[in-house]
Amino acid sequence: MKLCGLGHPKPSLSGVGGRDCKMGGMIPLGRKRRLMGEVKKAGAEALLVTSPVDVRYLTGFTGSSAAVVVWNGKTALFTDGRYATQVAAEVDAAGVKVDVEIVEGSPVKAACALLVKAGVKRCGFDSALVTVAGLTGMREFVAAKGFWVEMPAAVARLRVMKDEVEQDGMRAAAELGCRLFHDVLEHVVAGTTEMEVAMALEYMARLQGAEGMSFDTIVAGGERSALPHGRATNAKLPRRGFVMLDFGVLLHGYCSDMTRMVHLGAARKGEREVYEAVLEAQAAGVAAVKAGVETGAVDEAARSVLRRAGLAEGFVHSTGHGVGMEIHEEPRVGKEGKVKLKAGMVITIEPGVYVPGKFGVRIEDTVLVTATGCEVLTPATKAWIEL
Amino acid sequence: MKLCGLGHPKPSLSGVGGRDCKMGGMIPLGRKRRLMGEVKKAGAEALLVTSPVDVRYLTGFTGSSAAVVVWNGKTALFTDGRYATQVAAEVDAAGVKVDVEIVEGSPVKAACALLVKAGVKRCGFDSALVTVAGLTGMREFVAAKGFWVEMPAAVARLRVMKDEVEQDGMRAAAELGCRLFHDVLEHVVAGTTEMEVAMALEYMARLQGAEGMSFDTIVAGGERSALPHGRATNAKLPRRGFVMLDFGVLLHGYCSDMTRMVHLGAARKGEREVYEAVLEAQAAGVAAVKAGVETGAVDEAARSVLRRAGLAEGFVHSTGHGVGMEIHEEPRVGKEGKVKLKAGMVITIEPGVYVPGKFGVRIEDTVLVTATGCEVLTPATKAWIEL
Repeated sequence: MKLCGLGHPKPSLSGVGGRDCKMGGMIPLGRKRRLMGEVKKAGAEALLVTSPVDVRYLTGFTGSSAAVVVWNGKTALFTDGRYATQVAAEVDAAGVKVDVEIVEGSPVKAACALLVKAGVKRCGFDSALVTVAGLTGMREFVAAKGFWVEMPAAVARLRVMKDEVEQDGMRAAAELGCRLFHDVLEHVVAGTTEMEVAMALEYMARLQGAEGMSFDTIVAGGERSALPHGRATNAKLPRRGFVMLDFGVLLHGYCSDMTRMVHLGAARKGEREVYEAVLEAQAAGVAAVKAGVETGAVDEAARSVLRRAGLAEGFVHSTGHGVGMEIHEEPRVGKEGKVKLKAGMVITIEPGVYVPGKFGVRIEDTVLVTATGCEVLTPATKAWIEL
Repeated sequence: MKLCGLGHPKPSLSGVGGRDCKMGGMIPLGRKRRLMGEVKKAGAEALLVTSPVDVRYLTGFTGSSAAVVVWNGKTALFTDGRYATQVAAEVDAAGVKVDVEIVEGSPVKAACALLVKAGVKRCGFDSALVTVAGLTGMREFVAAKGFWVEMPAAVARLRVMKDEVEQDGMRAAAELGCRLFHDVLEHVVAGTTEMEVAMALEYMARLQGAEGMSFDTIVAGGERSALPHGRATNAKLPRRGFVMLDFGVLLHGYCSDMTRMVHLGAARKGEREVYEAVLEAQAAGVAAVKAGVETGAVDEAARSVLRRAGLAEGFVHSTGHGVGMEIHEEPRVGKEGKVKLKAGMVITIEPGVYVPGKFGVRIEDTVLVTATGCEVLTPATKAWIEL
């Protein structure tokens, strides 16, 4: 039987099409040092980590079930037999010193036993991730009063600041996103469904090593571009009108995120003007990014352009959000945001204007904050594209 | 520009390819009645629900952010402006009486305000889903001692028993799964990558109305079939060897789940024997399913066949799990499981034997428990398929 319909990757992709997913680089020692600083600040001696993303950040392990204990210079990881081979390979590839133990029962229970054995008196846990019932369970394993110390977003908080290895990971994901935008354009044709375009994009992403998409791909044609979250449907792209493409890959643990607009046929009255206004607002937002600047000032830089253009009412969301191993991270970049940007944060800048029932325009880049401004990780063209 | 590479759906699919995702049928009144029974049993007067799956189950609303309060015969739903149009349409389509309120700030805060206004003295919440920090937030809105009552898996527990509308939803999802298994076979060719097969399957699924896949599609060729969770990679399918296909769609809110094996080229020594043994074990598991039977007895029915065949050591996981709006639900069907099956539960029966470094075989159906046995929702052939 012949593979048809879904052909082999195009020649232009074949150079990378064969590579398997693998982890990014080595995990720097600084992650753990910063984490232990936070643990001490919270008055604890150790931290119990169970969220898969946080486990991957600290140890390189990508399995779905694990408990990690970080304390006193040591890191221990408990998982089950399904992952015996994988955990050894991944921890090794990440270059971190981790005592791995394969357990039969609950990894959390095993982690608690270690904490007791090690004489830990106070252990932090992520109260923004552990459920009420989860904490009840942990208390059954270690009941001592005051033992469990709430540390909301204990690891996620660190992940807001991307170290060099992570910056490389974000760059690689964003570059793949840019290539995909370029390559998907040939599928953006009147009469094709949004879903066909989305699937073409996702297919190319997976063949180029993406573990998946970082969120539901948005392909929204014509009137549907007026929906801020126009997930691809089986609606057909119009002969004449905007197509919004907002998508992200998950590559080696890191998310890309970008939005571009293309126009099928000639622009109708007002469309080009809104596009140019959003483009200017987006550029103003990017230009405002710099270490030390408050998120609210970045939002205002973009928003004020649209206000001057009389389009502020159509800008119904905030200007951006942090992005990293998860698609939505801190900080939020919105009205009156008081968080001061720091070099190493990665945020999106994505103003949009939506004219219900007619069309919408959003343009989005992901940028890395630096001391003097920012590095745009998604440099794909924002020129007016008419297909 | 012409759509190439990813062609239009094949003629055989075109009859359904154009339909958009829509909700399943009307929501029966019984769901709320059963829920209020549980609320009263827990000593509460109302329940606060925030998990998107549970919100969808009770109201039909599919948005990502909402708080629902169920009390005293009434249901109130709070969400934000992004969903104003969608929530009205979905609640209407589900035929449930819900007071919808669009709020500017936190839906949970608005829900708490309603609880206070309504004079509720004790409100349940799902302690298996609400985080420790989430509960702290809720207590800031309503601080009265004893107000918040832990009800772990409050709604998930009801969802274990599928009502008639849900049974139809599960049937439809499973039928789509079976069609996809049939249609994907033409892509299962030596030299094709696992990822290409997975993407062909996912592409066809989306064109036929699937909202997405219910878990990462497993396509595992040759030696990789020995991995119980062989997520599709860029590895090429072998000229000779098994290919494991384990996949599920999410259709109108319900998950399908099935595993089938096909063999490329002629079987090697032992392969056919293991296949037949697993097939027999799977049939024995299915035959054991009936209301009143303990899950452990179903597991043992499948396991004992493999034990007699000298293959028990290769069966490293449990026999199955509940499935519904989520891919893993209660009950677990494993060794010594004490849960008594009830008519209306939907579970998988999926014994497998794994020979590390060589091959693995797993065969899985999803079945609906009935008073007299079960209805196999995934009747796709389990005959030996050699391509």
